[in-house]
Amino acid sequence: MGLSSSPLKGMRQCYPDELRLERFVTDRMLEAGRLYGFEEFEAPLLESMELYLAKSGSELAREQSYNFTDKGGREVVLRPELTPSLARMISAKGREMPRPIRWMSMPLCYRYERPQRGRVREFVQFNCDILGCEDLTADLEIMLVLRRIMRSLGATPGQFEIRFSSRRLASDVLSSLGSVGEAEMQLAFGLMDKRSKMPPADWEQLLCERVPDASAREALARFMDCGSVEDPWLGEVVGERSSLAEVRELERMIRDSGLDEARFDASIVRGLDYYTGVVFELMDTGSENRRAICGGGRYDDLAGIFGGERITGVGFGLGVLSLMLFLKTYDLVPGSGQSSHDRVDVFAAVMSGDERALATCVAESLRDVGLRVAMDIQGRSLSRQLGQANRMGARWTVIIGPEERSSGCVTLRDMRSGAQESLPIESLPERVSSGSA
Amino acid sequence: MGLSSSPLKGMRQCYPDELRLERFVTDRMLEAGRLYGFEEFEAPLLESMELYLAKSGSELAREQSYNFTDKGGREVVLRPELTPSLARMISAKGREMPRPIRWMSMPLCYRYERPQRGRVREFVQFNCDILGCEDLTADLEIMLVLRRIMRSLGATPGQFEIRFSSRRLASDVLSSLGSVGEAEMQLAFGLMDKRSKMPPADWEQLLCERVPDASAREALARFMDCGSVEDPWLGEVVGERSSLAEVRELERMIRDSGLDEARFDASIVRGLDYYTGVVFELMDTGSENRRAICGGGRYDDLAGIFGGERITGVGFGLGVLSLMLFLKTYDLVPGSGQSSHDRVDVFAAVMSGDERALATCVAESLRDVGLRVAMDIQGRSLSRQLGQANRMGARWTVIIGPEERSSGCVTLRDMRSGAQESLPIESLPERVSSGSA
Repeated sequence: MGLSSSPLKGMRQCYPDELRLERFVTDRMLEAGRLYGFEEFEAPLLESMELYLAKSGSELAREQSYNFTDKGGREVVLRPELTPSLARMISAKGREMPRPIRWMSMPLCYRYERPQRGRVREFVQFNCDILGCEDLTADLEIMLVLRRIMRSLGATPGQFEIRFSSRRLASDVLSSLGSVGEAEMQLAFGLMDKRSKMPPADWEQLLCERVPDASAREALARFMDCGSVEDPWLGEVVGERSSLAEVRELERMIRDSGLDEARFDASIVRGLDYYTGVVFELMDTGSENRRAICGGGRYDDLAGIFGGERITGVGFGLGVLSLMLFLKTYDLVPGSGQSSHDRVDVFAAVMSGDERALATCVAESLRDVGLRVAMDIQGRSLSRQLGQANRMGARWTVIIGPEERSSGCVTLRDMRSGAQESLPIESLPERVSSGSA
Repeated sequence: MGLSSSPLKGMRQCYPDELRLERFVTDRMLEAGRLYGFEEFEAPLLESMELYLAKSGSELAREQSYNFTDKGGREVVLRPELTPSLARMISAKGREMPRPIRWMSMPLCYRYERPQRGRVREFVQFNCDILGCEDLTADLEIMLVLRRIMRSLGATPGQFEIRFSSRRLASDVLSSLGSVGEAEMQLAFGLMDKRSKMPPADWEQLLCERVPDASAREALARFMDCGSVEDPWLGEVVGERSSLAEVRELERMIRDSGLDEARFDASIVRGLDYYTGVVFELMDTGSENRRAICGGGRYDDLAGIFGGERITGVGFGLGVLSLMLFLKTYDLVPGSGQSSHDRVDVFAAVMSGDERALATCVAESLRDVGLRVAMDIQGRSLSRQLGQANRMGARWTVIIGPEERSSGCVTLRDMRSGAQESLPIESLPERVSSGSA
């Protein structure tokens, strides 16, 4: 006695009303993907540790993940993210698949972190990736999908922004200034990525520890403050290198295609090791929560670790919980239309247990034409059955008593008007399907 | 180099074509549930070990499961089945929820077993349960849902059967004969459940070991051969006990409601500890695979372990993979209509990179009205773009070149007839939405 009825800390559970709300959001994500020709796939939830060590970095693979040794002695991980599995699956089919590959998925992911607002241990994250296309048009398309998701949920331009930069550019800037060597680049990216996630004073302190040279610190800060690809300082530092030309080209494409919600922000680098080119974040720009809802970018060699051909890709992961918090902030959460009060079309009520068998047959004939039907299975009184019919949102109630049983006719009650009519059982499916009186 | 591109043994991964096929099946399951007023919920994938020890029995919880100690020292399990989580969630909300509760879910589950045909380590299992209703009408309704799923997938009565019995009856019979004491009842059920899963000679040997008394063995075999609730032997053994009256009542209700696919079979007991009343299996009755596709039954006190009120329930778990093997056996798998060759409605093709921005704007305007649009993002030649449009199943291709760019008109190609027309960009969404020429 007394086993806890709570889930484990940070785990996700959805009662029907909660799930309906989540589905409202996830359906829009998948629909946005379909509008761009994306196909859905699913990967295993358990993968080998070496996959994440090779792709995500050891912090995520070992420290922040749920991992264990299975009964066969394999070191396995509950996926903390989907991209390594995507790489594995694409690599396995190799050249069979026509390019570009547009894939999306809605995986459950796991991280062993301290749960807090917007951060839990079990979460759903929408993933959207274009593979096998080096052109910046793919980066642009991925951002368009993201904007379409936000728009389809009712978000307006003032509420969100897509901020982009380029790891190639950041790398060129940092190495040109001589402040960061090639080997320390990932550490520098990690440091940049942390700025928006820490109190400013704490970040300054961390910066001083990691970058002892004051002029290098200044250069780093100067770069992170770049908010335009036309900032002359950028040209002075990197010259005519392709990384700068690339972000300028992307900026131009973004303007030409009317993606007004996107803007350059050099402080964006993202935390994952595998990004190599364009990186971006979807930001809530409202006053309450200035935080990243989603991140993504380009990875240049996703599949190389499997010994296959080089495959480049660009994609994002969008946390459903973060997005739902965003929707709540802006009061964009759909209302009562999504509640459990619309569960059935018809309720089949009986006067007594003697009519149950007939009621079951009537209910089955209505389901045959696609109507959702609930019936009394507890022997309740007629008035309580009508109450239940109302609670379940039934548009109609079919009432069956001894008289109906002998006559072959049933009583149909319109639950909105209260009007009743008598009609033969055979004509019921057509009558109810055809709608109101 | 050379990390394996295969998933871990027994794990599930679905490429888009495979997922589409699976969704065809799972959508029909969920739709069947909705026709009976069932609501969908989702439970966590990780639960505490003690939950399964209390509900599923230690064989499933420890030996056949993926379990480990997490970083916080908790003994956790990747759920091998959903019912314990269902019990926990219902118990947590207690009396808040109006009864009966009709819930369904489509969880991923995990078992550490040797993979073989139809048995894997990661699988999707449709769950459907009615809670808070003691009446046999609930048991009947659950079986009706099961039949509807099979029918909606095109299965005909000769291909499947729902075989039911009652653990209460089995318990009464076995204890009346004096062959099995109360304490050994679960073991006896386990033995009975194994018969259909083992070669007959192996089972006979196991029986002899477990039940040394020959007359007890005979009685057990005699009971398992009962194929009718009217078998006079049953009455002789158990007399007028309620367990026999109950299965006879269920049999009558099944006949009256036209559920001709169901029949009594005393050999059905199911393997899980928590069943207490009616139990049933969905059997493939074809010659090739006489196996259970699905099992279910009634559990009388699901929530007691949480210290709350007693809640009775009845439900089933239906493995998606087993069902798909069944569909393949009878050639009921849907064909090419479900393939990736219907990914988009429109393909936006360009003569050169100069028209990309315009093509993006045109594509966006078509997506705004709900059309699925892919566009070239790789700089391919026009003829290769038309090939890609065909491969993706585009009904239309919009062709944009320098002339179109200056005139504000685009060329629309009907991909079935090959006919082309020129029209202003603004009228394109309406023209394409309205369908064929």
